Amino acid sequence: MKIEIKKKILNKNEEIAGNLREIFDGRGIFVANVMSAPGAGKTTLLEKTVTDLKGLFRMGVVVGDPQTRIDTMRLSKTGVHAEQINTGRGCHLDAQMISRVITYFDLGKLEVLFIENVGNLVCPAEFDLGEDVRIVMNSIPEGHDKPAKYPALFHDADVVLLNKIDLLGVINFDLDKFAKDIMTIKKDLTILPISCTTGKGLDKWYKWLEMMIKRKRGGGG
Amino acid sequence: MKIEIKKKILNKNEEIAGNLREIFDGRGIFVANVMSAPGAGKTTLLEKTVTDLKGLFRMGVVVGDPQTRIDTMRLSKTGVHAEQINTGRGCHLDAQMISRVITYFDLGKLEVLFIENVGNLVCPAEFDLGEDVRIVMNSIPEGHDKPAKYPALFHDADVVLLNKIDLLGVINFDLDKFAKDIMTIKKDLTILPISCTTGKGLDKWYKWLEMMIKRKRGGGG
Repeated sequence: MKIEIKKKILNKNEEIAGNLREIFDGRGIFVANVMSAPGAGKTTLLEKTVTDLKGLFRMGVVVGDPQTRIDTMRLSKTGVHAEQINTGRGCHLDAQMISRVITYFDLGKLEVLFIENVGNLVCPAEFDLGEDVRIVMNSIPEGHDKPAKYPALFHDADVVLLNKIDLLGVINFDLDKFAKDIMTIKKDLTILPISCTTGKGLDKWYKWLEMMIKRKRGGGG
Repeated sequence: MKIEIKKKILNKNEEIAGNLREIFDGRGIFVANVMSAPGAGKTTLLEKTVTDLKGLFRMGVVVGDPQTRIDTMRLSKTGVHAEQINTGRGCHLDAQMISRVITYFDLGKLEVLFIENVGNLVCPAEFDLGEDVRIVMNSIPEGHDKPAKYPALFHDADVVLLNKIDLLGVINFDLDKFAKDIMTIKKDLTILPISCTTGKGLDKWYKWLEMMIKRKRGGGG
């Protein structure tokens, strides 16, 4: 019975996500679903990104957390339009939540929407939010064994950002093992090592993002 | 409907957890449910603990992960009896899983059972596993805002271990804010700063654990 209900919930979610995708595509809005463990650095990444790409795109951010508006407050300081979803005891964002929250944005003006999912390496992977790309973020202190332990998340990822590489000198982390395990799950998945603290590698993340946005707009740009 | 089903699942879990508690109490087995975000250091803590307290208690460990036997293999090297539960797409351990896995232990000889939950700050909090105490672990790189964002986890915690304090010099972390937010959720909740890498603070964790075990045995010891 548990499985049947889960299937029904996921089917309902697929339906709403499909509808969201039509809305986003119709308006040419590029949507990125950002997923990671708690504290990997999603909010810091988005603070940097919306600040550094301010001149290129009109962006918005949706943030999911069980409680508090801490992240929305941080993001709003950059000038970006940010909206918070509090999931309470919920462990992920779903398409229904997104369909409600987007009514708070001026969709006619929006070009890029980042969705910062609830910090969790399991549940968010199962819920399509109508996004164009899935960004999976890991960080050095979490250890190199996360791809092997949480393969489902990497299976549907479009890029892996490995954050906090400034800590590589202080913390043991086997980069080769990390990359090898990801390749086993999804060959050719791009891994971008970055540090949101020092800014190292962010240029490559921005290039990747621009490439994906241009691709959605028809390969030209 | 989603909420009704969730209630049923939780009620069923309560029932099995109650049964587990009777089994554990009847045999005088002390059970600790260890919860944290992915990569906070649960396995390293348990490696240290079962090694350092080997002479005091007969211990066992159950480890939950979506995939792999990595943690069980690590723990088995210490000589402790460790059993792995792979949850697949499941985001937490439940009482049913525990009732199955304990049949692999020699319960007549066991005095302490550690249950390392799936790395997740949301879902594990909702599932009673028949434990005596709930250990919540945070780590410095995750940031000080986790108690505010994930209050449910702290609400039922018996102790908070703040791991990786050896990184306090390298990473910004507001200890006062962290402690204050926890006090708002649960006044008098013990917070023990530790480093599983340097060993700092582990003596206090062992003392706390021994105190709780003695308390279960009848206050004497």
